[in-house]
Amino acid sequence: MESDLKSIQPPDPYPFSEYEIVKKLYNAFPEFIGNDTATLPQIPSEHQYVISKDLLIEDVHFRTSYFSPQDLAHKALQVNLSDLAASGAQPSYILCGIGIPVRLRSYAQEFLTFLTALCKQIGIILMGGDTTRSQNHLFISITVIGHARSDRIKSRKNAALGDIICVVGELGFAHLGFLGLEKSIPTEARYLESFLRPKAKIQEGQWLAKQRGVSSMMDISDGLYADLKQLCTMSIQGATLDIDLLRSHLVSDVSTEIALTGGEDYGLLVTISPRWFVNLFRDFRIQFGYNLKAIGHISHSKGVVIKRLATRVEINTTPFSHF
Amino acid sequence: MESDLKSIQPPDPYPFSEYEIVKKLYNAFPEFIGNDTATLPQIPSEHQYVISKDLLIEDVHFRTSYFSPQDLAHKALQVNLSDLAASGAQPSYILCGIGIPVRLRSYAQEFLTFLTALCKQIGIILMGGDTTRSQNHLFISITVIGHARSDRIKSRKNAALGDIICVVGELGFAHLGFLGLEKSIPTEARYLESFLRPKAKIQEGQWLAKQRGVSSMMDISDGLYADLKQLCTMSIQGATLDIDLLRSHLVSDVSTEIALTGGEDYGLLVTISPRWFVNLFRDFRIQFGYNLKAIGHISHSKGVVIKRLATRVEINTTPFSHF
Repeated sequence: MESDLKSIQPPDPYPFSEYEIVKKLYNAFPEFIGNDTATLPQIPSEHQYVISKDLLIEDVHFRTSYFSPQDLAHKALQVNLSDLAASGAQPSYILCGIGIPVRLRSYAQEFLTFLTALCKQIGIILMGGDTTRSQNHLFISITVIGHARSDRIKSRKNAALGDIICVVGELGFAHLGFLGLEKSIPTEARYLESFLRPKAKIQEGQWLAKQRGVSSMMDISDGLYADLKQLCTMSIQGATLDIDLLRSHLVSDVSTEIALTGGEDYGLLVTISPRWFVNLFRDFRIQFGYNLKAIGHISHSKGVVIKRLATRVEINTTPFSHF
Repeated sequence: MESDLKSIQPPDPYPFSEYEIVKKLYNAFPEFIGNDTATLPQIPSEHQYVISKDLLIEDVHFRTSYFSPQDLAHKALQVNLSDLAASGAQPSYILCGIGIPVRLRSYAQEFLTFLTALCKQIGIILMGGDTTRSQNHLFISITVIGHARSDRIKSRKNAALGDIICVVGELGFAHLGFLGLEKSIPTEARYLESFLRPKAKIQEGQWLAKQRGVSSMMDISDGLYADLKQLCTMSIQGATLDIDLLRSHLVSDVSTEIALTGGEDYGLLVTISPRWFVNLFRDFRIQFGYNLKAIGHISHSKGVVIKRLATRVEINTTPFSHF
């Protein structure tokens, strides 16, 4: 059998082992890395762990040609933190799975170094993960774990008829950044930054989760239209968007279509009971120095409809697929 | 900007959305799927959650040519459960991230259908995950969550000098199955089964975690030699393997080299205090109907050495890389 074994063994043995990389991580977080499983510490009885995972696949979610390893570490982490933000949770741990093609060995090492540093910087512990090779593309899978008070974990399911639909954060910036990078055209730094290094709305999510009147919350990752549709499905509701209200929140570079379908902005989508809206709007402004963006309300519509006054407006809302 | 948008949009829009797949999962586990995060229920205060993640990448860990979607669902789940087995934990939840190339759309759908069914069958809840497309290869990332009594969670770090090193399960079977499949030669069903549908030693792991005398435990995924080396590193110890003892446990098809380097058997590697070994050996036999395989002891060696009586034996222990 030994000769069979040798004939299948790759002629150029793969130049790194999982242990090598795990060892480096182990040095950064010695108390957590190295076992088959990581153990989650106990938390106060009124809290619960929340967990989420997101994939980032080369040439589907990012290109190494314009994402530096630092950019990618930022994005991979923030995209995952954004899910926790939408639940109002405090992020605590991540696990990182990575599949590395030979050509990106040093890129991936740099990515892991920056990811580890970023985690340390914001007080998140890298608990473990899996490192393996990949045939062609870099593949990143992060699992993020946080915790929140049980009575404050927000879901997508509780939007109620009449609730005001609000957006936290800018719309379309990430998409403009994406277009600029794909077409190599000069693009404002704030747009590039939004696409390469989005920033999860962790503080805003935690603050909103505490407020009376917030009925549901999710993050905007696939584009406002698709995500709102999902929220409506989960809440068994419809939504009516006011196109003039929506446009009033957009910078001039952002078309209505991009605002609705661009995606990757990692803002929050929130529904707020009209009774509490004015106070909440005011307090949010005081707390964060910028405004909640009201764009419509939960209605009897079938799905999401876009209106100007009482008239329905047709807009292409096909979700945008990158690359 | 709209025309720019259209020119980048792929000519043949990708034929499925995350929502479609998530909706199917949602129907299977309506209480858990659909939010940005999944919430982990509270557990008794003497218990803790443990968590692990493993990647499976097409043409690195499996080939769709001989893995049916059912096989792959089995393997993806069991490989992850094996990590929990090594900690002595009870598996409760998984999250499944999947990157799907267009050509494998229906294969992936079947995989998810079987994965969902398998989870239901063994009482594991699919809590959430992420579904996206991939350029070339199928990527699977599963995160598994379980719980165990805090005082019974086993680690790789506590092997002590003189402890007896034991293996739970067969060695080399999975590798023989792998060779048969790669070379399309007739192969015994038990070998094929070991490679295509390994079975995590969950019961054995839980039982061993309760026993006095078990100092450390890990699963055997990368091959006995590499995994034992890792256990020694983590415990700051060395190990001496007795080649005749090892060979006495092997079926005739399995060479010593394959037993040491084959990998993917998903048995357990356990170290047991010599004081408790005889009782534990007897009780394990009574409990499970097969024997623990003693193969050596924790020693002053530098790393892992293999001996016949007092003489060192040189064996090629280069970890085997599939594909």
